[in-house]
Amino acid sequence: MTPPSHRALVPFVSVEAMMRLVLSIGVEEMLRRLATAIEEDFRRWPAFDKTPRVASHSDVGVIELMPTSDGALYGFKYVNGHPKNMKEGLQTVTAFGLLAEVSTGYPVLLSEMTILTALRTAATSAVAARALAPKGARVMALIGNGAQAEFQALAFKAICGIAEVRLYDIDPAATAKCARNLAGAGLTLTPCRSAEEAILGAQIITTVTADKQYATILTDNMVGAGVHINAVGGDCPGKTELHRDILTRASIFVEYPPQTRIEGEIQQLAPDHPVTELWQVLTGAARGRSDPRQITLFDSVGFAIEDFSALRTIHALIAERGGAQRLDMIADPDDPRDLYGMLLRAGA
Amino acid sequence: MTPPSHRALVPFVSVEAMMRLVLSIGVEEMLRRLATAIEEDFRRWPAFDKTPRVASHSDVGVIELMPTSDGALYGFKYVNGHPKNMKEGLQTVTAFGLLAEVSTGYPVLLSEMTILTALRTAATSAVAARALAPKGARVMALIGNGAQAEFQALAFKAICGIAEVRLYDIDPAATAKCARNLAGAGLTLTPCRSAEEAILGAQIITTVTADKQYATILTDNMVGAGVHINAVGGDCPGKTELHRDILTRASIFVEYPPQTRIEGEIQQLAPDHPVTELWQVLTGAARGRSDPRQITLFDSVGFAIEDFSALRTIHALIAERGGAQRLDMIADPDDPRDLYGMLLRAGA
Repeated sequence: MTPPSHRALVPFVSVEAMMRLVLSIGVEEMLRRLATAIEEDFRRWPAFDKTPRVASHSDVGVIELMPTSDGALYGFKYVNGHPKNMKEGLQTVTAFGLLAEVSTGYPVLLSEMTILTALRTAATSAVAARALAPKGARVMALIGNGAQAEFQALAFKAICGIAEVRLYDIDPAATAKCARNLAGAGLTLTPCRSAEEAILGAQIITTVTADKQYATILTDNMVGAGVHINAVGGDCPGKTELHRDILTRASIFVEYPPQTRIEGEIQQLAPDHPVTELWQVLTGAARGRSDPRQITLFDSVGFAIEDFSALRTIHALIAERGGAQRLDMIADPDDPRDLYGMLLRAGA
Repeated sequence: MTPPSHRALVPFVSVEAMMRLVLSIGVEEMLRRLATAIEEDFRRWPAFDKTPRVASHSDVGVIELMPTSDGALYGFKYVNGHPKNMKEGLQTVTAFGLLAEVSTGYPVLLSEMTILTALRTAATSAVAARALAPKGARVMALIGNGAQAEFQALAFKAICGIAEVRLYDIDPAATAKCARNLAGAGLTLTPCRSAEEAILGAQIITTVTADKQYATILTDNMVGAGVHINAVGGDCPGKTELHRDILTRASIFVEYPPQTRIEGEIQQLAPDHPVTELWQVLTGAARGRSDPRQITLFDSVGFAIEDFSALRTIHALIAERGGAQRLDMIADPDDPRDLYGMLLRAGA
């Protein structure tokens, strides 16, 4: 059998390869690189083909495809969301993604994206906070200490200069796990016994809880003037974390309004409630924080462009450093019209 | 590093593995198995989640995602269409696909689909013809002798009992390639010098040309009463093969009307021109051929359910026979909330 051509072999970054890549660069440096790519791509937002995500719902979860393209590269992510998976010892969210060349349609990268999504979500939160949080913020409350928590803590350290993280989870075992994993990371870690205690003295409040239907992690009286809220956990219809009254007091910033109005905290508000698109703050077209007493809220749900930024970062890194397998995924007959002949000759 | 669990390793069928699988079963037997799966799935058509395909267009081609689900399994195909690729020695169409479990969202199969799409397209054509072509059809005209041609010839032999194939292509080299590849397959092969000559005595006319904008492969006067036309090549906006007058004389059968009205031959007709859905013919809910003088036309564009049928066929075959690699594609921490801990421990 003739060996397949270079183009027919698609670089594949396995879970193990992703872990080795992240560890060799360092988690914080990887978060900084992702933040740079995400900010670059948000600044050229109008260049992207923005398709709404394509969801297939069942009684127990959802499977989604999230495509986008900048005209040179095309990317998509496959991602599921199955809250009941955790009880079965499975991940609530697993993901993989692909990058392809628009000019030929040939894939150039297949990558695990469970770890990469955790990294890009945290990097996006930090990019938003760098633009919106009060100047000199050093203390962050981190409410919800599950799979995303450590990534958030490290992104805010690496990108926003956070020095203390105040941890709270309804399950103390989750807080203990988070504190254990972050020991030695250079952060002051303060485990707390309530959300109220966690937000004491915090300039940034990150909510990243899971598996809650219309939960109220924060009530109105808990949130003082001048804070930045990074609301990560409310990210699908029926799943919110903040009391509606906080939303009406806050200046709200979002990724892509048509998606956030369905999936984000603002699903609790009127469909014409004013929101600002983060990309416009990053380009300077819209104002971010304009008053030290203002409550800013980043209502994050995750958007395809962030995955695109993450995939192109990995694509560039493996070109530099290697670490990808090559998958024989694309049939590549010598004569493109002779697909059947290729099959025939494979038997000879 | 702890080895990943069984579920975290996704079976992958490479191009080479697909060729070995097809050759070990035999092309005709594979086509028959695919036809069985496609017919089963068309008969339970209402059970499927039918999302329109999600296309990303550029000046030189298109990249599409085609998802569907039957409530137990979810499948999607990635496929590009770049007519100019052939001149660069690349495939016009390349594809891969994935099957996942709806109950957990975990992938259960990743597979090459360039070869598999060629097989399922031919099997679908034959399933339609078995229901629509005149009884006892033995002679097929095959107009367009490119990458799909041999698969069509063998599917019509294996599934419809075609004994003679009359070949024509605008490029005699394509016809010669096709005749060479099919020598010894048990078909009488008759190379022809024109489309008119190819359709002489044919009860079935298959048109499967590529890279043509509003071409007219068949004109009205060429098509006599009683034939079945299998129109495969007209499959995207601006790409058709048949003169409009043939369409108005024919009884038209389609896969999924909302898609075919945009992509198929019937894009030339009014949006309310009557068509019959193939699945309804297969269940008996609608009539197929009702008159020996009737011209039946299967306006095939390819639908996600056919890819689903093909993927589940391959999934069952590799469970029986092996042949898949296992890809470390899904992150699988021992504690689902401890994704960061898994990363940390990988460095230890």
